[in-house]
Amino acid sequence: MKKDNLIWTEKGRKQVFDCRVFSVWESYCKPPVSQSDQDEPLVFSVIDAKDWAIVVPVIENAGKKQFVMVWQWRHGCHCLSLEFPGGVFEPGEKPQDAAARELYEETGYKPEKITKLGEFSPNPAIMSNKVHFFLAEDLKNHGKQNLDKDEYVEVVLVDVEEVSQGMGKPPYIHALMGTALALYCQTTVC
Amino acid sequence: MKKDNLIWTEKGRKQVFDCRVFSVWESYCKPPVSQSDQDEPLVFSVIDAKDWAIVVPVIENAGKKQFVMVWQWRHGCHCLSLEFPGGVFEPGEKPQDAAARELYEETGYKPEKITKLGEFSPNPAIMSNKVHFFLAEDLKNHGKQNLDKDEYVEVVLVDVEEVSQGMGKPPYIHALMGTALALYCQTTVC
Repeated sequence: MKKDNLIWTEKGRKQVFDCRVFSVWESYCKPPVSQSDQDEPLVFSVIDAKDWAIVVPVIENAGKKQFVMVWQWRHGCHCLSLEFPGGVFEPGEKPQDAAARELYEETGYKPEKITKLGEFSPNPAIMSNKVHFFLAEDLKNHGKQNLDKDEYVEVVLVDVEEVSQGMGKPPYIHALMGTALALYCQTTVC
Repeated sequence: MKKDNLIWTEKGRKQVFDCRVFSVWESYCKPPVSQSDQDEPLVFSVIDAKDWAIVVPVIENAGKKQFVMVWQWRHGCHCLSLEFPGGVFEPGEKPQDAAARELYEETGYKPEKITKLGEFSPNPAIMSNKVHFFLAEDLKNHGKQNLDKDEYVEVVLVDVEEVSQGMGKPPYIHALMGTALALYCQTTVC
């Protein structure tokens, strides 16, 4: 699609902050040419972080579909959150492998089948990284988490319907879990 | 719910970066007591930004349900994105008023009816702010945008089904629009 009236041009960028999890850049951009004769670029702040995966693990339990989910503490909201498993890619790791690894580490479940559901910018207004979504099926429970030091994760099975109805209210407070649910619902009746 | 084995305790925080759109804080936290005897707090980086609203505007057009959506350039991904309208709250503004105002400014549509769909942390791992979702109905098109300087937004009507099937692929690359869709689908058959 051609939308020259909306496209900005980046003239340069500079790192202005860095920490373990992300860095912040100033991006110097000129507005869409056809709508402005302004000469100086404007400054936009962009957060760069590693790509990561979110996995929707589905099992059938007594005729009901359930998600394998994780309780964990989140330092941004300073609150508990009930989420799909996931985590950042290791260097050189394929998205699908990262998804399966994170699922196994956080929950002890290994998938026989893993399918890409979609790929998003978590917040393209200010973030440059990507979040990749996967569906994990035919799960085998190996019964043992493999958590990082200082990682505290509690595994639970939750009915699909409960998650679907609960989104947007505690403990389903992580917006990107809503994204994951929307993608899952593309594949089946929710 | 009582989950003492997962709850961290914040001992203090300090601002380490600031710009027009967000600030970054170091949060000093002690791990869940029952699982650790570690004495020194660990450092977590937290991004603080204003709360904002995302609005799902629905109209019925020739028997089909459509969303009022906006094309815009996003500086984080450096790409075009097709999204629901939205924007940050002004000081003291009620979430619902902010939602209606942003919808009107970006698209020229005013809603007779606006309903809260849910509230999330956009990314509770690293962000402390909230994003509020609204459904806007009984829309009147006043035909005139009221954009900020250097804001370039193109309005389009898109069939609900097209958006639903497109999520996770360009131009539906903004993850929080997937969240909005999941909440909309709680209210109706998608």
